[in-house]
Amino acid sequence: MHVYGADYYPEHWSQSMWDEHIKIMKEYGIEWVRIGEFDWALIEPIDGVFDFTILDRAVDKLRDNGIKIIFGTPTATPPAWLVKKYPEILPMDRSGRVREPGSRRHYTPNSPIFRQYAMRLVGEYVQHYADAADMWQVDNEFGCHGTKFSFTENDRKAFIEWLKKRYGTLENLNAAWGTIFWSQTYDDWDEIVFPLNTPTFENPHQMLDIHRFMSDSTIDFMNAQIEIIRKYSDKPITHNFMVDFMDLDYKKMARYIDIVSWDNYVATDDYDPLRQSANHVMMRSLKKSPFLVMEQQPGRVNWRQRNENYPGEYLGMWTKQAYVDGALGVMVFRFDQIRFGAEQYHGGLLDYASRPTKRLVEFSKAREETCGVVNPIRRVAIYFDYENEWIHRINHINRDFRYWDSVVEIYKAVRRIGSNVDFVFSDDDLEEYDVLIVPYAFKIEKTFVNKIKDFKGPVYMTCMSGLKDEKNWIVENAPEGLTEEFGIEVVDFGAIDDKEMLLNNVPHRARYWQDEVELNGAKVVSAFVDGTPALTLNTSSGKERFYVTSVLDENTWIEILHDKLPLRIVGSDVQFAEDSDNMYILNLRNSPNVIYLNSQKLKLEPFELRKVIK
Amino acid sequence: MHVYGADYYPEHWSQSMWDEHIKIMKEYGIEWVRIGEFDWALIEPIDGVFDFTILDRAVDKLRDNGIKIIFGTPTATPPAWLVKKYPEILPMDRSGRVREPGSRRHYTPNSPIFRQYAMRLVGEYVQHYADAADMWQVDNEFGCHGTKFSFTENDRKAFIEWLKKRYGTLENLNAAWGTIFWSQTYDDWDEIVFPLNTPTFENPHQMLDIHRFMSDSTIDFMNAQIEIIRKYSDKPITHNFMVDFMDLDYKKMARYIDIVSWDNYVATDDYDPLRQSANHVMMRSLKKSPFLVMEQQPGRVNWRQRNENYPGEYLGMWTKQAYVDGALGVMVFRFDQIRFGAEQYHGGLLDYASRPTKRLVEFSKAREETCGVVNPIRRVAIYFDYENEWIHRINHINRDFRYWDSVVEIYKAVRRIGSNVDFVFSDDDLEEYDVLIVPYAFKIEKTFVNKIKDFKGPVYMTCMSGLKDEKNWIVENAPEGLTEEFGIEVVDFGAIDDKEMLLNNVPHRARYWQDEVELNGAKVVSAFVDGTPALTLNTSSGKERFYVTSVLDENTWIEILHDKLPLRIVGSDVQFAEDSDNMYILNLRNSPNVIYLNSQKLKLEPFELRKVIK
Amino acid sequence: MHVYGADYYPEHWSQSMWDEHIKIMKEYGIEWVRIGEFDWALIEPIDGVFDFTILDRAVDKLRDNGIKIIFGTPTATPPAWLVKKYPEILPMDRSGRVREPGSRRHYTPNSPIFRQYAMRLVGEYVQHYADAADMWQVDNEFGCHGTKFSFTENDRKAFIEWLKKRYGTLENLNAAWGTIFWSQTYDDWDEIVFPLNTPTFENPHQMLDIHRFMSDSTIDFMNAQIEIIRKYSDKPITHNFMVDFMDLDYKKMARYIDIVSWDNYVATDDYDPLRQSANHVMMRSLKKSPFLVMEQQPGRVNWRQRNENYPGEYLGMWTKQAYVDGALGVMVFRFDQIRFGAEQYHGGLLDYASRPTKRLVEFSKAREETCGVVNPIRRVAIYFDYENEWIHRINHINRDFRYWDSVVEIYKAVRRIGSNVDFVFSDDDLEEYDVLIVPYAFKIEKTFVNKIKDFKGPVYMTCMSGLKDEKNWIVENAPEGLTEEFGIEVVDFGAIDDKEMLLNNVPHRARYWQDEVELNGAKVVSAFVDGTPALTLNTSSGKERFYVTSVLDENTWIEILHDKLPLRIVGSDVQFAEDSDNMYILNLRNSPNVIYLNSQKLKLEPFELRKVIK
Repeated sequence: MHVYGADYYPEHWSQSMWDEHIKIMKEYGIEWVRIGEFDWALIEPIDGVFDFTILDRAVDKLRDNGIKIIFGTPTATPPAWLVKKYPEILPMDRSGRVREPGSRRHYTPNSPIFRQYAMRLVGEYVQHYADAADMWQVDNEFGCHGTKFSFTENDRKAFIEWLKKRYGTLENLNAAWGTIFWSQTYDDWDEIVFPLNTPTFENPHQMLDIHRFMSDSTIDFMNAQIEIIRKYSDKPITHNFMVDFMDLDYKKMARYIDIVSWDNYVATDDYDPLRQSANHVMMRSLKKSPFLVMEQQPGRVNWRQRNENYPGEYLGMWTKQAYVDGALGVMVFRFDQIRFGAEQYHGGLLDYASRPTKRLVEFSKAREETCGVVNPIRRVAIYFDYENEWIHRINHINRDFRYWDSVVEIYKAVRRIGSNVDFVFSDDDLEEYDVLIVPYAFKIEKTFVNKIKDFKGPVYMTCMSGLKDEKNWIVENAPEGLTEEFGIEVVDFGAIDDKEMLLNNVPHRARYWQDEVELNGAKVVSAFVDGTPALTLNTSSGKERFYVTSVLDENTWIEILHDKLPLRIVGSDVQFAEDSDNMYILNLRNSPNVIYLNSQKLKLEPFELRKVIK
Repeated sequence: MHVYGADYYPEHWSQSMWDEHIKIMKEYGIEWVRIGEFDWALIEPIDGVFDFTILDRAVDKLRDNGIKIIFGTPTATPPAWLVKKYPEILPMDRSGRVREPGSRRHYTPNSPIFRQYAMRLVGEYVQHYADAADMWQVDNEFGCHGTKFSFTENDRKAFIEWLKKRYGTLENLNAAWGTIFWSQTYDDWDEIVFPLNTPTFENPHQMLDIHRFMSDSTIDFMNAQIEIIRKYSDKPITHNFMVDFMDLDYKKMARYIDIVSWDNYVATDDYDPLRQSANHVMMRSLKKSPFLVMEQQPGRVNWRQRNENYPGEYLGMWTKQAYVDGALGVMVFRFDQIRFGAEQYHGGLLDYASRPTKRLVEFSKAREETCGVVNPIRRVAIYFDYENEWIHRINHINRDFRYWDSVVEIYKAVRRIGSNVDFVFSDDDLEEYDVLIVPYAFKIEKTFVNKIKDFKGPVYMTCMSGLKDEKNWIVENAPEGLTEEFGIEVVDFGAIDDKEMLLNNVPHRARYWQDEVELNGAKVVSAFVDGTPALTLNTSSGKERFYVTSVLDENTWIEILHDKLPLRIVGSDVQFAEDSDNMYILNLRNSPNVIYLNSQKLKLEPFELRKVIK
Repeated sequence: MHVYGADYYPEHWSQSMWDEHIKIMKEYGIEWVRIGEFDWALIEPIDGVFDFTILDRAVDKLRDNGIKIIFGTPTATPPAWLVKKYPEILPMDRSGRVREPGSRRHYTPNSPIFRQYAMRLVGEYVQHYADAADMWQVDNEFGCHGTKFSFTENDRKAFIEWLKKRYGTLENLNAAWGTIFWSQTYDDWDEIVFPLNTPTFENPHQMLDIHRFMSDSTIDFMNAQIEIIRKYSDKPITHNFMVDFMDLDYKKMARYIDIVSWDNYVATDDYDPLRQSANHVMMRSLKKSPFLVMEQQPGRVNWRQRNENYPGEYLGMWTKQAYVDGALGVMVFRFDQIRFGAEQYHGGLLDYASRPTKRLVEFSKAREETCGVVNPIRRVAIYFDYENEWIHRINHINRDFRYWDSVVEIYKAVRRIGSNVDFVFSDDDLEEYDVLIVPYAFKIEKTFVNKIKDFKGPVYMTCMSGLKDEKNWIVENAPEGLTEEFGIEVVDFGAIDDKEMLLNNVPHRARYWQDEVELNGAKVVSAFVDGTPALTLNTSSGKERFYVTSVLDENTWIEILHDKLPLRIVGSDVQFAEDSDNMYILNLRNSPNVIYLNSQKLKLEPFELRKVIK
């Protein structure tokens, strides 16, 4: 499959504009559109009355012109009549306030009434468009705007049911949650409430279960829709994931969908291309398969403090970057740029007067450069776990630390050296990788502990890893099950701000956390200026097992890793990747660049993608 | 009329103190007092029982001593018995919380019960004091402390009525609000709610109407009082406006009152005299008539993070500045300084032991220097629109930008060059002005578009102008209706932080926003270092039409404008003004200053006001 | 009494671990434990059913091994069944939200139902353990996590009763609260509400009474428990106070308990040993008696933004510092380090595998160095008043100012010069002190005004002192009752950021506040660069009376005070104290230090405590 196109909203326009839109699509190679994902009120204007007239006309016109269609199920925007009739469908936030209608995502999936209306809608929608659809998207950006969490009475009841399934008895729950602490013992399931606005810190075991439950609530709602779709259609099903987003367990969700897709928006105030790449690679890693960019930022967005106007060339480069990182295509959000609505300032491929923009021209060019799908060969594996993100958020000893940000530092280090990266999960096979990195992994599934032990190449594990169990308890001896493998025991630990360490006697800064380790076979490779170990190496098993006692930045990781990884790239602002046949070099500068690839000088044009046959 | 005096609260004192107070008033030339505006509980201690005894005694004493009286209607502080009886009169804030009694302004004007009690009170009060009053003030500082907004059920109902009047049909409303976006279509008026605590951005068209409705709710309440007053009295009516305050449409309010008055408090953490002047001039501009300072900050206030103690000389200078900017007088808040209450730290003209202060001495001196009313001649017009302020607040592409702050930069530039300024509104006549500036004016009324075209002198228009319509939609071709006049089209735009531009090849900083313009006849006068236009000039119509693509600071505006405006003043910390007969030079330093007026050296004493006959 | 031990939670462990725990206690000299203070759900698992089985077993084992026991009454953690049955026991915070269960301290003492259940529990508990107890602790850390305040309907009713007792009539209350301001007059007690979420500033007199009432509510609850304990036991009663904590009137509370104890946690992001010492001395000053550290931070805590891991040597030094400052012993929180619960990251004397840590070793060593109780001789008295802290918090003219922080600056100055300090309260006897300092004391009780006048040595009084009365009104002539004594009158005042003053012609910085003083007999010792007085001295009464017009830092206070206090210590990072027999020098560095004691060189080992016989 090869999917290039844009997200399109015919219902936002007078029907007289549609022909002009479709003419431009065909002219510039927009072969796919996604439609419909916010159209609940359009197709069910009155409770139980479904009217597909307008959407049908648009769908017919698109299909008559050979444009393929991804249908989004329109469950993300319950209409005003439904909210008025059943205010109980509205979610409640952590501050105990109802989240009101007037924007989007104003529902909790644990409202039985909402579920009933949403499923009826999806049933009608899918049946109606089963023939027209080339792909399905379930809802839109689950969990966006903090909507993973809802704390209504319906959510509480669903949580108790979830707990009953998980623990069976209250005795088990009391034990797992350590409720003896602070007199929190439960004697009746119905005593369990969400710990909102508590005077001080919540129970961390309960909090982890709340994270799990809220993620599962969304997944359950997604799966109920998937079940309906599969009944009427055999077309692939996806859901559009988000950038830097860890509220939901995407790994778990990826199991249920056919294609991973995601929405590629610049994640940070200062645009960082390799962070976007880390997100691409995470998406590819979820199923170890090509992924789709379902919404590609076109230029300016509307939701930042300051919304910069990226020139059209950026869209060309972003499209090429997705390709290099293994995408099967890119859909731009959005085709048409509209003058009204909460996103009126959001750019599109057309301008406000529906004329083609430079963005459209550049996207069209980039599409032509990116035929086929790159299948990057495996080099470096970085262990990741969504549940660990949640543990990191719960009463951390260093609340300044951000799990994903520190993982991205490692990702960038490896890419800058010039190696491909995969994120790996507990159930992944590690055989093909050269190097394994296990960073900040509080909880490591037992199956993965064994994979670490079995791994033939060098393993780099860091502080925090193996310090907690699946209940979010701290273990007795950390890293759990791996003290012998790494030849160290973590006997204490604490937060640091930043602290100087020496690596090859050159000073570097470590941050956030420092372990106090006891050496049981490992030797010290690098130390802090106060003499405490920073990096240890155990080779007693005949394999190389490195342990990092603190949190390091991109450059320090380059220093540590380049011993084991060939330095393919000399230069900056460039991204390197390779598949079995080619090497790909993408200039990340909107100006000429000179770099060395395996010591060979390459001159690159602005945002140029260079393919070099191996 | 010539109004010098102070705000006075006899009810805060034992009656035995009144004679002493009035003796000091007469000694220092306090000829006017404002009284009564917080006295609801005093005059209606029990529901329906009115008792004017205490206030009558004070009024009689004041009048017997020839002191003129401004009566404030005491609707700003509903008494405890009323709140207890009808909690529904309390307003609700944006977070959905009731705003409780215990300070002031704890009412929503859309509560029918509150309206009924307030009108009964005003009726009794006005009838009782119709003979004693020399002027009326309606309520006190409408909208202060964010009380423009209230979101109770009564407010919602009133909003729906307001919408019915504005749109007639739901079809019209759905079209105007673009409710097709995110399934927000309404099928029943009663489905419309305030978008509080929404997961993400609200409908921007609805938000603009909410701003309009809340402003209109206050205006409607004011007008209901004005109607009562006019029934019993022919004395002038005013309301005290506030500094840097844009929540309410003061232009619209000014139509209904006889005299504009305002409360001149230092608006910023670092005192900026020309910003205070910009407020004076805005007040004069509302009716293009002399205005009154109803509350002049005496020295220290109590409501800042840090409340500085301005020495008495400042009050003298502030009084003279009001005069130069066209005031018909100054009332100081407050005459008596009290030891208790929420404003116990607020300075007065007396001290805590009721002795005259240096502030009183200096005010008294300044009063003598400021006879008559200055009527500044017209030079530069700056376009302003309160609704544009509201549009700027709604999901802006650069949330760091502040409309009024950036307008004040232009104001200060013009004043520092040495020209008078008027703020002009859509319905103002522009004939007498030399130069017109249209800054950051998202929406420009059609009538004003024509005035811009007709204006004979140079016009400076900036980015953002003419980009939106009255519904808060973005236009197809910006600046709407003026692309030909200015010889440019804005084809794209975006936020910037700050960016270097070259003006006469000298670097300057532009901020917040940059347009991408297509030149259709205009030539580039100044450019950014990346070559994009910063300032263009179109002379094809035979008139000078400048377009500024970004947001500039005071000094850059001076560079741009001094070509067209004579540089009358060389020097700093000085304010210049002129009427048909005189030039006025006010030293803004509390120390000697030397400046050049039309190349003539002037030595000024600390805070001196120098009048020079033309 | 000599109390060295730790806080212990046998119920957090399998009973099979207890023998091992107690063995370690005996090995390392843990002679006391505190237990039980969070065990409500354990001992009353079902409404009205008390079951002491588990706790009894632990108590028996401890007593059999000669370990003394402090029993905490377990009222701080109402069990889930009680909350479910009576949600009304939950407190309400200032934002009007219920504070939910799920952590601790989720009760208001003004709930009659809660009081009834708590008293029944305490009755059962105390009767059951009357024989086993060596000391009692009432509840745990009253007021922690902002729980001084609760605003439920029960609290409002209790507040009204409290007001009736204080004022007798509404007329008195209206007068005291100055309700004439802003129409706040009350005509019915039931009209009085808490001023939550008011549009602007609350009534400052009401606010002070709310502070008093909330503090009294807690004290009343404490006293109700004390009454029960005294019925069954004659063992000493304490409550564990907190660091830098001023919400409750500890001086008032100290009257009712037998021993002052407190919880010594590092109070600031950057550890400041002399600030901890100021807290020790405040605790000693409350009853002018030796105090107990009931919870000593062992190393890492869990509740900061960044939780640092203090090496074991720190616990040794902290123990010695408590001794030097007059403690009768130190209990470490906690003995056992647990793997679960909201405090899972909190350090203990054991590690997660229940092995002794370096912290335990160092604590054990320090205990041996600290026999007996130091009784510091009296040198310098610093006046303090908890109610003044509350006045400082209410609508201050400089909201950046912090009373206690600025008092600590003075404390540190005196200690660094080398003198003992006592904090003194209105009812304290001042005879033995050499120097009296009265800093930032808004309200000075009349009895203390006379003590100031009578004081033979030099008195240093600062700005803000004597500016307010017990109703929180500003006085007519400040400092009230002392203008003649100090030869000055404060005629005005205001906030400053910081401002340069000259002391012996060397520049220093003053901050926050500056008085404008009129000199009536005093002479100027130091002035600001603008010529206004900074420090005045009046000797007309034959005694030295210094007045400081601003807020000064530690070093400036050293400059001012060392004229009157002998400079005993030259050096840094060292704490000096003396009793009638010895001088104590504690090295506050974890490295060697060289200092001069009365000009004699002393070399100190890391964290060494040196005792020098006088």
